Amino acid sequence: MSVILDLNSDLGEGFGVWQLGDDMALLSIVTSANVACGFHGGDPTIMRRVCAEAISRDVSIGAHVGYRDLAGFGRRAMDIEPDRLADDVLYQLAALDGIARSEGGRVRYVKPHGALYNRTVTDPAQAGAVVAAVSAYDPSLPMLGLPGSQLLRQADEVGLKTVREAFADRGYQSDGSLAKRGSPGALVTDPTMVAKRCVKMATTGQVTAVDGGTVAVRARSLCVHGDTPGAVELARQVRTALQDAGVQLSTFS
Amino acid sequence: MSVILDLNSDLGEGFGVWQLGDDMALLSIVTSANVACGFHGGDPTIMRRVCAEAISRDVSIGAHVGYRDLAGFGRRAMDIEPDRLADDVLYQLAALDGIARSEGGRVRYVKPHGALYNRTVTDPAQAGAVVAAVSAYDPSLPMLGLPGSQLLRQADEVGLKTVREAFADRGYQSDGSLAKRGSPGALVTDPTMVAKRCVKMATTGQVTAVDGGTVAVRARSLCVHGDTPGAVELARQVRTALQDAGVQLSTFS
Amino acid sequence: MSVILDLNSDLGEGFGVWQLGDDMALLSIVTSANVACGFHGGDPTIMRRVCAEAISRDVSIGAHVGYRDLAGFGRRAMDIEPDRLADDVLYQLAALDGIARSEGGRVRYVKPHGALYNRTVTDPAQAGAVVAAVSAYDPSLPMLGLPGSQLLRQADEVGLKTVREAFADRGYQSDGSLAKRGSPGALVTDPTMVAKRCVKMATTGQVTAVDGGTVAVRARSLCVHGDTPGAVELARQVRTALQDAGVQLSTFS
Amino acid sequence: MSVILDLNSDLGEGFGVWQLGDDMALLSIVTSANVACGFHGGDPTIMRRVCAEAISRDVSIGAHVGYRDLAGFGRRAMDIEPDRLADDVLYQLAALDGIARSEGGRVRYVKPHGALYNRTVTDPAQAGAVVAAVSAYDPSLPMLGLPGSQLLRQADEVGLKTVREAFADRGYQSDGSLAKRGSPGALVTDPTMVAKRCVKMATTGQVTAVDGGTVAVRARSLCVHGDTPGAVELARQVRTALQDAGVQLSTFS
Repeated sequence: MSVILDLNSDLGEGFGVWQLGDDMALLSIVTSANVACGFHGGDPTIMRRVCAEAISRDVSIGAHVGYRDLAGFGRRAMDIEPDRLADDVLYQLAALDGIARSEGGRVRYVKPHGALYNRTVTDPAQAGAVVAAVSAYDPSLPMLGLPGSQLLRQADEVGLKTVREAFADRGYQSDGSLAKRGSPGALVTDPTMVAKRCVKMATTGQVTAVDGGTVAVRARSLCVHGDTPGAVELARQVRTALQDAGVQLSTFS
Repeated sequence: MSVILDLNSDLGEGFGVWQLGDDMALLSIVTSANVACGFHGGDPTIMRRVCAEAISRDVSIGAHVGYRDLAGFGRRAMDIEPDRLADDVLYQLAALDGIARSEGGRVRYVKPHGALYNRTVTDPAQAGAVVAAVSAYDPSLPMLGLPGSQLLRQADEVGLKTVREAFADRGYQSDGSLAKRGSPGALVTDPTMVAKRCVKMATTGQVTAVDGGTVAVRARSLCVHGDTPGAVELARQVRTALQDAGVQLSTFS
Repeated sequence: MSVILDLNSDLGEGFGVWQLGDDMALLSIVTSANVACGFHGGDPTIMRRVCAEAISRDVSIGAHVGYRDLAGFGRRAMDIEPDRLADDVLYQLAALDGIARSEGGRVRYVKPHGALYNRTVTDPAQAGAVVAAVSAYDPSLPMLGLPGSQLLRQADEVGLKTVREAFADRGYQSDGSLAKRGSPGALVTDPTMVAKRCVKMATTGQVTAVDGGTVAVRARSLCVHGDTPGAVELARQVRTALQDAGVQLSTFS
Repeated sequence: MSVILDLNSDLGEGFGVWQLGDDMALLSIVTSANVACGFHGGDPTIMRRVCAEAISRDVSIGAHVGYRDLAGFGRRAMDIEPDRLADDVLYQLAALDGIARSEGGRVRYVKPHGALYNRTVTDPAQAGAVVAAVSAYDPSLPMLGLPGSQLLRQADEVGLKTVREAFADRGYQSDGSLAKRGSPGALVTDPTMVAKRCVKMATTGQVTAVDGGTVAVRARSLCVHGDTPGAVELARQVRTALQDAGVQLSTFS
């Protein structure tokens, strides 16, 4: 029986004259594109170009919604009121969807970005705000996130489809949570090792934890990062290794 | 035979903690609301509140798209590349439409704001960019603007419905153009006079020009301003005077 | 012996076309102006106008530094790295000081705004960042803040002069901390009552706590708010009551 | 007799997570750094880092002031009111100077960026605004700009020191103006050719115009660009060629 896996990556993260990562190269590798919507990165022109290319390559477009924080790239947690956060998410989601539609596609899922992603793992109020915004806009949109997170739990409760993701190059603790950035083993950098781990996750649903034990990581989507030097090459190796192992790469939406 | 006229006003022009004008009062007067979309004013929460109230009062929602210039409130002309301008307009339009839809309504027309409004009267490239964005998003959306403007001309050429507007409190020159702000008679401030002019425009299609002559001003929509002290009272007097003269107030969309 | 007290208020909190509070009226009442520096509110033109008027009225100018968050008016706590926060504070402080100097004055003290004020009461890292920025810019500048706060403690440790403030219209708990917004008695709204409390604080160093007990509140500066309706009138009553009680109103710098 | 020339380049043009150009490499080549001040690029942390490195390398720090337009990188002309523009320039200049001073240096000159640079070549009102801001802040600061520009003319009239600059890789018309971007010969890209032209300008005060004639270009400072691929290498070749030709590289301030 063939295993099916989605490869997702953060794209369209430049702003104006500034670029981040190689969008076009990554769009030839991934099956799902988390597209920045203008609040932490991404501008309307970048959004349109990424959407156009994603559509032409049959890559699924996701709304990568974040805090309104260009200076911090959405990586700084903010104590924003849930109602305002829901409105901010709705605005970003609608803007990207309209741009995607004008190019002949549409937004197919939602994934929070950066500090909002981390916050909604445990913060019920902010998780609820993201869920409320997606439900209000289009309750048929799946939510992509961390297994066990408040985000996926609440999305599930209100009837949104949820999609569990794993991380290609992040270390896991034995309880299935991500190892803290900066702690030993938190980031796997050797491409061969990363590719091996991904194949193991895809085919066995398990990965070696930072303490040497084995931990279950069942995911429908695998996140590869695109904003670091060598990211494209790493993503390509992951893709090739998965395909060589007989994993079928296909979006979930 | 009854004359039909639309009353439009700029709404939702606050941002965060800052308010501008009395949105809720104006929504009880006008038939069309030009709603700021976040680039020159308006934030997602204000946009949602104005949309909700407009929908509940059967006021038509228009996308009031502007330059990305919060510090200048979109009142400063910008030499932005047409392609980028089109993307900026598309983004704003889509964001507002998504918010309106989540409240059970939708965007029914587009009107440029401030310096973009003025620029697209004469600048073919920027007018074309606004027209292209609306066409790409939804070619059934009418464009509201100044008769004779590049904007309406180009909208008409590509098959968009166009809606001509006149201004309740602005002085006209004998050629039908608006008297320059700051020139004598450029702004009519006496409410009784404004109401009288509006009735004359609605019922005769004519208005007294600043040089004393008579000029034809045929419009389907009449713009009343909402951001000055006394604006709400002025709008209310215009509405009452029009109704007393047998004019039927009704949106064009 | 005469008691000396400073009256401070938040000023220059508009942005672009948007106004907040009545700056010019408040400048005729207070002895110290906490001037917004552009990150949560305030733009260069507003900053210059407030500085010019403050200088002409001999009102002391303070840098009211905040998080970079126009949409949230700096009222949302942010997990910003201390080093970046220090740079943001330094930037704001320098910008305001340069504007004040170009008008013939200078910045005489620093006070954090909104969520940064609250955060630096208890967060040592962010308090340290604000202190570091002020020390780097001009170690002779006093820090205005809450008695017992991390901010004043750390400022004191590195040799900055500290100035303790009390709040005219906020309820106090019996331990001297402010009653949480929303809790009973957290805000005193009756002007006569507010004025009475201020006189009591100024002349006895004590105020009635929300639980009915008496609590010591020794402060060199009293904060009156300027952004609510009736704020100017309230501030005027406080000023008059203090003067009638023989309190000498004078800045600390 | 030795010729003295300054090499200036635009630096600190990243924002938050986004980088542009190789600031540290360029600081080992140029003698003057035009540092972005946060309105078109540059954030407080980038500004501080560039200032620190410039000071340690004895590179002169200039305030590279621009329009408030992060999305357009200050490259879009804006019809901003002169009074507001002056305040915006003052704010940026003061912020950078404060940061430079906190690192033990100071701002030594001012140069407008991008569209503001181009606009102030011919627009007297905007040129006057920039000049007014610099005069108000510190009338001892030189203005760096295009010979014959409104900016330098007005700076000179009010008593500011002016410094004329030439461009290393831009084509000149026979009247001494720059060839329009996009026109034939507008950009010289071959490093050897660029270096040769620079040596010729430095040693003879002349350069070959795009029409093949010879044009006088007398400048105290030579601008090399830093934001394109190969820019650092090009700058290094220019520097070496000038030194080999006996030109003494030294700041003007």
